Amino acid sequence: MTQHFSPAINRLISALGKLPGIGRKGSQRLAYHILGQDDSLAKELADAINNAREMIHLCPICCDLTETDPCEICSSSQRDRTTICVVESPRDIASIERIQEYNGLYHVLHGAISPMRDIGPEQIKLKELLIRLQDSDEVKELVLATNPTVEGEATALYIAKLLKGTDIKTTRLAHGIPMGSDLEYADEVTLMRAFIGRQDI
Amino acid sequence: MTQHFSPAINRLISALGKLPGIGRKGSQRLAYHILGQDDSLAKELADAINNAREMIHLCPICCDLTETDPCEICSSSQRDRTTICVVESPRDIASIERIQEYNGLYHVLHGAISPMRDIGPEQIKLKELLIRLQDSDEVKELVLATNPTVEGEATALYIAKLLKGTDIKTTRLAHGIPMGSDLEYADEVTLMRAFIGRQDI
Repeated sequence: MTQHFSPAINRLISALGKLPGIGRKGSQRLAYHILGQDDSLAKELADAINNAREMIHLCPICCDLTETDPCEICSSSQRDRTTICVVESPRDIASIERIQEYNGLYHVLHGAISPMRDIGPEQIKLKELLIRLQDSDEVKELVLATNPTVEGEATALYIAKLLKGTDIKTTRLAHGIPMGSDLEYADEVTLMRAFIGRQDI
Repeated sequence: MTQHFSPAINRLISALGKLPGIGRKGSQRLAYHILGQDDSLAKELADAINNAREMIHLCPICCDLTETDPCEICSSSQRDRTTICVVESPRDIASIERIQEYNGLYHVLHGAISPMRDIGPEQIKLKELLIRLQDSDEVKELVLATNPTVEGEATALYIAKLLKGTDIKTTRLAHGIPMGSDLEYADEVTLMRAFIGRQDI
């Protein structure tokens, strides 16, 4: 009697609860919302998931999620093919594309090296990147845009080391105080990075 | 170029964005998470939604969401059939069942009267409640557990008025300071209700 849910609702709640950032209460709320509407919302959502499952796969070149083969960016003639920006997840590409500042290619690692979580260089799409660099002599620069976390930093360093002695330059996004924020609220590591990276004006 | 999303991902993002409490950024995050896992999470979620859509319907007696006909609570011989707790949504039943204090039946209105949003008594499952009361002479009390909002209060008052002069007693859940909270943080209306409802100790 403690949990009054029918099996079908329970199943939906537990499937929703596996999404990131959605806890027990949140998944109950979503489940009831999905069931409470007329049937169209539930159908639309299930169809969208199934459609995406069918259509979306990894681009054979950059490993981004795509419907076309290769993906739009890899097959575009407008992009600068001398630069590859290396990111951890497809989401990062969406963020970078939004600023309309970068016009090169991408490579998605689908993760970062993390000995703590037993993720080594073989568990991410690093081999694909190296093969890609071997097969092309156009690439001049790798922008290592992995996250500024322990894992992201380690991954960037690892890749930079692998390419030492080659003609390919490796760079890292600048760290510092976020725009519009307050010095007072910056954490120490960020502040330190901001000092080290200080520039003439 | 501003929005780098393939149509299938866009469709999934916009379907997810229709869920309550999930904005544009959140739905992007969920979509990428669903696609980023091996196929099993997406399949599980789509199947759970479709399964729930097929199995779940309204109980013909209390209008709760159910897989059985009538629902478990309505068909249980253990429940006190003299009391009906009237709630706005099926979620409220889950909350009340969790406290294990109430052993009567339920009735789900699926909304509350709200002239502002053009929801009158005909738009909620009120007729079903009245028919139910007419057909049964067991019911002695209606606990009006609609939300303590303008709409919920209006709905409770409306139902109480309808039943004035009948043998059925109508009650309302107590309002007051939430347990474990601080007087200082209680809003004025709650504090006023707590005063009006003060009890001897």
